[in-house]
Amino acid sequence: MTLEAIQYLRGRLHILNQLLLPHETCYEEIDTVQQGWQAIRDMKVRGAPAIAIVGCLSLVTELQQSNEEDKDAVVTFILDSLKYLVSARPTAVNIAKAAAELSALVRRETQKAESTAATIKESVITHIVSMLEKDIADNKNIGDCGARHILSRINKEKATILTHCNTGSLATAGYGTALGVIRSLHAMGRLEHVFCTETRPYNQGARLTAFELVYEKIPATLIADSMASIAMKEKGISAVVVGADRVVLNGDTANKVGTYQLAVSAKYHNIPFYVAAPCTSCDLSLENGEQIVIEERPHQELTDINGIRIAAPGIHVWNPAFDVTPHELITGGIITELGVFSPSELQDAVIRG
Amino acid sequence: MTLEAIQYLRGRLHILNQLLLPHETCYEEIDTVQQGWQAIRDMKVRGAPAIAIVGCLSLVTELQQSNEEDKDAVVTFILDSLKYLVSARPTAVNIAKAAAELSALVRRETQKAESTAATIKESVITHIVSMLEKDIADNKNIGDCGARHILSRINKEKATILTHCNTGSLATAGYGTALGVIRSLHAMGRLEHVFCTETRPYNQGARLTAFELVYEKIPATLIADSMASIAMKEKGISAVVVGADRVVLNGDTANKVGTYQLAVSAKYHNIPFYVAAPCTSCDLSLENGEQIVIEERPHQELTDINGIRIAAPGIHVWNPAFDVTPHELITGGIITELGVFSPSELQDAVIRG
Repeated sequence: MTLEAIQYLRGRLHILNQLLLPHETCYEEIDTVQQGWQAIRDMKVRGAPAIAIVGCLSLVTELQQSNEEDKDAVVTFILDSLKYLVSARPTAVNIAKAAAELSALVRRETQKAESTAATIKESVITHIVSMLEKDIADNKNIGDCGARHILSRINKEKATILTHCNTGSLATAGYGTALGVIRSLHAMGRLEHVFCTETRPYNQGARLTAFELVYEKIPATLIADSMASIAMKEKGISAVVVGADRVVLNGDTANKVGTYQLAVSAKYHNIPFYVAAPCTSCDLSLENGEQIVIEERPHQELTDINGIRIAAPGIHVWNPAFDVTPHELITGGIITELGVFSPSELQDAVIRG
Repeated sequence: MTLEAIQYLRGRLHILNQLLLPHETCYEEIDTVQQGWQAIRDMKVRGAPAIAIVGCLSLVTELQQSNEEDKDAVVTFILDSLKYLVSARPTAVNIAKAAAELSALVRRETQKAESTAATIKESVITHIVSMLEKDIADNKNIGDCGARHILSRINKEKATILTHCNTGSLATAGYGTALGVIRSLHAMGRLEHVFCTETRPYNQGARLTAFELVYEKIPATLIADSMASIAMKEKGISAVVVGADRVVLNGDTANKVGTYQLAVSAKYHNIPFYVAAPCTSCDLSLENGEQIVIEERPHQELTDINGIRIAAPGIHVWNPAFDVTPHELITGGIITELGVFSPSELQDAVIRG
């Protein structure tokens, strides 16, 4: 069974509290906008697509419970709620994008002569539920396209994949991007094994990806980030598949720090290197990776674990959260919901798609 | 001032308790063989050369306090003590090698007609103290040879070095191998900056190398292992310098896991890659790196930190302690106390030396 970090059924929303992972698997019900905001703020849910979905669904649950029949009051409540939800994690772009879309939708609906409180509520709910469904459907397409592409390029029955960070059910509306490719291979019976890096300094691989893989009984092995090259040399890796925070016009890709090193090593070992990302992660406003600003994170992520200092006091630290992989190292391709493209094909495909 | 993990002065031995690093800098006096054995067993001292030196020096301290005048009793005590010391960490080769050398010395001395309890004690003490001095002198030569070689190949006043794991005063009798090269550059005023990897899973870089660098006010920055490639791309690294657990006939080198990945990345970035090791680390009985057996370490090193589980329960783990860097990636050279050699020159140099 696929791990569901966001469960939405007949108007009720439950989320997996990621703060308690991997020690406890605990779902919490969210039935107000306030609770949605708090869950995002507290990082019970993380990953930009997942944040947008949970925020919007918290609005759905509150709208469904509401008996308000005054049209203006409903419109005001929706617009205020969206603004409030965006404030929970101001740097997450997807929720701001979703809020802008929904606000525009509400304004269009309001101007229709026949619209009522009920029709406006209904259109917002329908739009949000379709967002959830589209995100999962896109991820499933990414998974299937990626799996087929990888299989077409190996001369073995089953593929062994190396992945980095967490790109699964816990970071998206469900299924996942790079981990979606792994799920699809597993569902097809064509997955030999997965190697997941622990992904220092925040250990998303050890904590979250390993959790998802164990949960779904996908055969997998955890390695330190420093072991990726020796694994590529000795463990028969068929492909490296990672996610993306942003793919720009020429195909250069920003992703969790360490991705660049994996791409360099995959090149040396002649192993195809894939980036899996929905078209919404493609930012065609930037020409190349040098224009991407890389966030530096707090030093404590590297020097402390669970509040205990592990590094020598006084040492300087460099902790970039992401790095940029130049397009020439993305030798397998960029896997989107529309298909797998080489970096040079991407621009046309996204604009056409 | 150089950090001294082993302080031996006029018959008194103090060791830095590495279990308390980096939180406390605490020296403990060792004045019996039993205390030496216990310090090694408890890993208060680690690193194969350091273990050998501390074990043997604990014998020196006890011999110097002894008033025993019976020749046979002294010989029996020395031989029994050496056997006992070897048992503290049976896998550490250097102490076994030192014990064999000293046992042979004692047997030769005993056969001399004029030998007494006092002359045998004296010859053993002299030999052990010279071991300590030779190890430090060799490391200083390694540091100076390496520094000069690196400087001869850059067109800048100062070098920036990336290193891995701990190869400093804490792993040797003093000064260090790869960290000795860094110390020499710093002493010459020709060191711009050091980047040290945290060195998962046991964090020797974050705990020990960072501690030594801070202690000696060497300008340094700690990075995660996954950040080495982006550092090579962006931070003006002049050379990568690492230690070695074993260098074999063709120059293939076993060292802390992650070394191979650094060598692959250095090659991609056209940055010279050096291995720093004394001739005693060269094992000419093996032809190539494929013959080196790689130890796998307990999974808990990767899944737990300070006794707290960080990885998802149930995940499989691969934890090789070392990896092998093929000689063709050692593009800078192998730095020994005799000079810097290309892998193909090494065999002749070591045999001649």
